[in-house]
Formats: sequence, structure tokens, C-alpha cells
Amino acid sequence: MTDLAIDVGGTKTLVAVFEDDSVKPSEVDRFPTDPYAGLENFITRLSKVCAKYVDPSNVRYWGLCTAGAVDVSTGRLIWSPNLGWKDVNLYERLSQLFGNQGIVENDCNAAAYGEWSARPGIDSLVYVTVSTGIGMGIVSSGRIIRGSHGAAGEIGHTTVLPDGPECTCGRRGCLQAIAGGRGLSSQVERLLGKRLSTEEIIDLAREGEPEYVEIVVKGAMFLGRFLANMIDALDPAVLVIGGSLGKNPHYRKLVVDFFAKFYYILPDKTVVIEPPSAEPDPGIIGVLQLSRSMGVRKNEKSDKIFSS
Amino acid sequence: MTDLAIDVGGTKTLVAVFEDDSVKPSEVDRFPTDPYAGLENFITRLSKVCAKYVDPSNVRYWGLCTAGAVDVSTGRLIWSPNLGWKDVNLYERLSQLFGNQGIVENDCNAAAYGEWSARPGIDSLVYVTVSTGIGMGIVSSGRIIRGSHGAAGEIGHTTVLPDGPECTCGRRGCLQAIAGGRGLSSQVERLLGKRLSTEEIIDLAREGEPEYVEIVVKGAMFLGRFLANMIDALDPAVLVIGGSLGKNPHYRKLVVDFFAKFYYILPDKTVVIEPPSAEPDPGIIGVLQLSRSMGVRKNEKSDKIFSS
Repeated sequence: MTDLAIDVGGTKTLVAVFEDDSVKPSEVDRFPTDPYAGLENFITRLSKVCAKYVDPSNVRYWGLCTAGAVDVSTGRLIWSPNLGWKDVNLYERLSQLFGNQGIVENDCNAAAYGEWSARPGIDSLVYVTVSTGIGMGIVSSGRIIRGSHGAAGEIGHTTVLPDGPECTCGRRGCLQAIAGGRGLSSQVERLLGKRLSTEEIIDLAREGEPEYVEIVVKGAMFLGRFLANMIDALDPAVLVIGGSLGKNPHYRKLVVDFFAKFYYILPDKTVVIEPPSAEPDPGIIGVLQLSRSMGVRKNEKSDKIFSS
Repeated sequence: MTDLAIDVGGTKTLVAVFEDDSVKPSEVDRFPTDPYAGLENFITRLSKVCAKYVDPSNVRYWGLCTAGAVDVSTGRLIWSPNLGWKDVNLYERLSQLFGNQGIVENDCNAAAYGEWSARPGIDSLVYVTVSTGIGMGIVSSGRIIRGSHGAAGEIGHTTVLPDGPECTCGRRGCLQAIAGGRGLSSQVERLLGKRLSTEEIIDLAREGEPEYVEIVVKGAMFLGRFLANMIDALDPAVLVIGGSLGKNPHYRKLVVDFFAKFYYILPDKTVVIEPPSAEPDPGIIGVLQLSRSMGVRKNEKSDKIFSS
């Protein structure tokens, strides 16, 4: 019994193979997503990588996650800015390769579910990825909150500072324009005339360079406050902050300190902030567990998990 | 078959009686909550009012909602600033009167469920009450999002403006200190030295008095933007704005206009903003429907609805 989990990122695609009911992969492989070569080209390369580790006809469950809005009831990717793909039925294409027992999910939702499933006994968990952009996934009572149009957790372009920095979306003051990786780089380029990586910017702030401190602390303040607002509203047991920038120790500490400053403490209410723990990545474990739970839940209408 | 629904407010308690499976009450009555007379005094008066309409031994299902954090698995009211009651097992006291088939719920959660149940076919709904304070209830796929400590939806004291107006909680810049009824009155008293009701303040703003316009528009802007952030993150089909201030036409229009300005539009994503529709009040219909759904769901562990 072999299960297959696939995380399609803008740059690379991660494939993991799981034997029997293990949550530790027997094989992990990566290949460039190269989305602009087109979907069929991607599917052909994905199929070749998978065939190295598993006979497609022997796959029990498969799961795939990617950035963008996913209609989980049909497995259709509605749109994905990272991949440039739009209205693509990923479930249909993958089921031709690996059979009907599969699911397609948004990557932040999958990551939230993966981290939730790694912590038995908790009711709800929020996962936030802080990287080039910013995204969120919410699990409540073991269920992913997807919203009415698959767009729950899309916090990157929510406005946190009217008339704030310009965003790639054409608006101003979006959360990721102030506090995301690309947002920090763009602000440095616009205000200081330098093209630097996010790591270089955080390092300069950590060393105390005042112009960099200002940009980085402002980003961390808006992110920490926004997360406190979200956690006040959703009251999860755990907030997991992942993503390359979310895992950067200096930036992370600033964000967590601002979070603690703004978080509203009530009797009996606490939240634990943790780094991601699911390996090889939270999205992979998320789609693995979601695909496995499909067998149990496929007749439960309200869950909208695709059943063949 | 008679069902009983009770909404315990800080000032008055609403009791509604429903025959068979009707969602239109056969009787509605009100009495002063007078919480500081103590719980036992309240229970005695509640019991007398109910006995006017229904023989307690004939109650099929009963449901009660009130402000504050409720542990729905035990029916315990953890704390309620409006009532001054703390760690009170309301389920236990009411089941002695009306039998085991009952539920206790937070009032905003109940209102969200009541409004959701009044709109068949939608996946998720957010209910916000804007009155003296500000609260929220979230229903997703027909389930109330309660959080890990019963505090989900507690948005009144989330910080939206660091160093903003002082709040009754001792902190600054809480959402309700800027945009709630008591918050508007306090700002007017502090900045303009006048003690006015919320309605008077909104009227003066509507008439164009500059100092009042400034306070009211600022409140509406922060509330509209905060709600846009929430709706971006939760992606419900419907946002219901209730509460006395939320139903005030001038304030409501300002809030909705700011919401529209900040809401992030994505393909296929829409939200409809509506006033409450459930009568005699959303909380009453919410606890009625929750208590009725108990029979179906009482064996489903994840839902945490109390089963006798």
C-alpha cells in the first residue's frame, strides 16, 4: 500500500512516497515546477518522477497541494498567481495517472491540516506562511475552513495600512506589501535605492542599520498585530508560523514580540506559537492525511472532499 | 411538542416558545435580566415567565444564549462581563427545570447560527453585532467556529490602532473603543466634553458637525477595514451586521462603504452584506435550531454539543 503526496510550488515541486500507514516518507524527490512550460509538460515530468518510486497502478491514495484557489469538490484549480494556471482540473489529470482516490487542496490549507494532524488532541490551529507572499490556513475541530469560494486564508492582499506601500496587485498597504519578502525588498528598493534579498535586509536590520530597522520593524509590527487580530477572532490552540521569512530568527522574534503586545488575554485562553514540525513539509503531510481520511469521510456531504 | 429559546442580555432577557417544528414563535416575552440580583434570583424569575406559556415537563428542546465565553461541552458560562457571572453551570441549572435536552451557547455564535439557518444552501456566514460593544460569530459548513477556548469571535478588544482611544479594558485602540457605541460616546466625552447617546452622536455627524463627523467616520473606517480583513480571511457567502449601532442607517452605510473600499476582490469570490433577518432575534432562532439539531448530532464527538 503506497500513498503519494505532491506539493507544487512556484519554483519546485516536492514528491513524497509513503508506505502502508507511515507518516515518514520512504522517498522524497524534487524537480523544477517550470509552470510556464504548460500543464501537460508538468504532468509528464511529474509522472516520470513518480514512476521512479511507485508503480502508478499501485497507488492507494494520492494528494496534491498548490498555491491558489482550489475547488476541492471537483479538484479544480480555479486560479494560481504563482503558477499562472487558471481553471485547470488537476484532480482529473492526476486521477488518470494514479486512480480516483485522490484530493487536491490549497497549499496553506494542506499545511494547516498537516500541522494540526501532527498535534493530536488539539481542536484548532492556524498556519501562516511568511515568504515571498503571506498566506494562511485554518483548521477548526479537525476541519479545514475553506470559505464559500475557496478563498479563506487569502490574507496576503488584505489592507492593513491605507495609503501604505504599493503592492504587486495594484493596491496599497496590503499585508504582504508591508511584511512579506517581496514587500520588504520593494520598500528597500523604492526608499533606499538598493536591490537586496530579504535575508540581506533582515541582516542589516539585525545589525542596527537605522533605515533597515525602520522598514523591518514596521513590517513585523503590522504582521504581529494582524496575527493577534486573527488569533483573537479564531482562538486556536496553536499558531504555526512557517515560510522562509517566518522561520528567520530575527524577523520571527520581532513578529512574536509584537503579537504578544497586541494579543488580548482572556481567562482560560492561550495560544502557543510554534515553527512548522511536519516533515518533509507541512503541505505534504497535510495532503497525505487528507487523502487517507477520504476513505472514512467520503460520504459526509458537508466536508466537500471529493469522492470518486 | 414545545421548544423553548432564551436570550439573556445584559439588560433584558427574551423568552420565545415554539410549537412542533415551527420557526415562528407562538409566544414571545421579555423581562429585566437584573443580573446583580444573582443567578438563583434570575433562575426563579425565568422559571415563572416560562411557566406562563409551557408546562416545564412538556419542553422538548431548550436553548439559552448569553454574552461571554461558554464551554458548550458542559454548558458552563466561563465568564460574562455583561452579567458579572463567572464559572456558572447554566446547563445544569436549566436542565433541572426543563430536562436534559438543552444547549447553552454564546450569543454571537447563536446569532450567527440563527442567521445561517435562515439562509438554506450557503456554506458559511459571519455575524457581527455592533452595539455598546462589538462581537462576532462564525459559521462554516454549518458549524460554529468556537475556537479552542470558546473565545472565537471575541473581536471587541482586538487592537486596531496602537495608542488609540482608551478602552474599558485598560488597553488602548481596541476595536470597540474606536467603533462601538460606548467607544464613540467616550471619545465625544473626552475630546468634546459632552455626554451624548450614540444616536445623538451619529445624528450630529449626519448633519455635518465637523468634530462629530471626524469621530464617527474614523470609527466606521476602522470597523469597515477590520471587517474587510476578517471577510478576506474567512471568505463567507454572507456578512450579517446587526446590533443597534450596526442597524443605524447612517453608520451602517459608512461602514459598508469602507468595507467595499478595502475588501479584496478575487475571481469567483463575493460577499453579500445584510441586516439580521431571523425573528424575534437571531440568537433566539440560533439556540432553537441548535437545540433541535442536537438530536441528530449528539453522537458526533467533534461537535462538542452537550448530550445528556
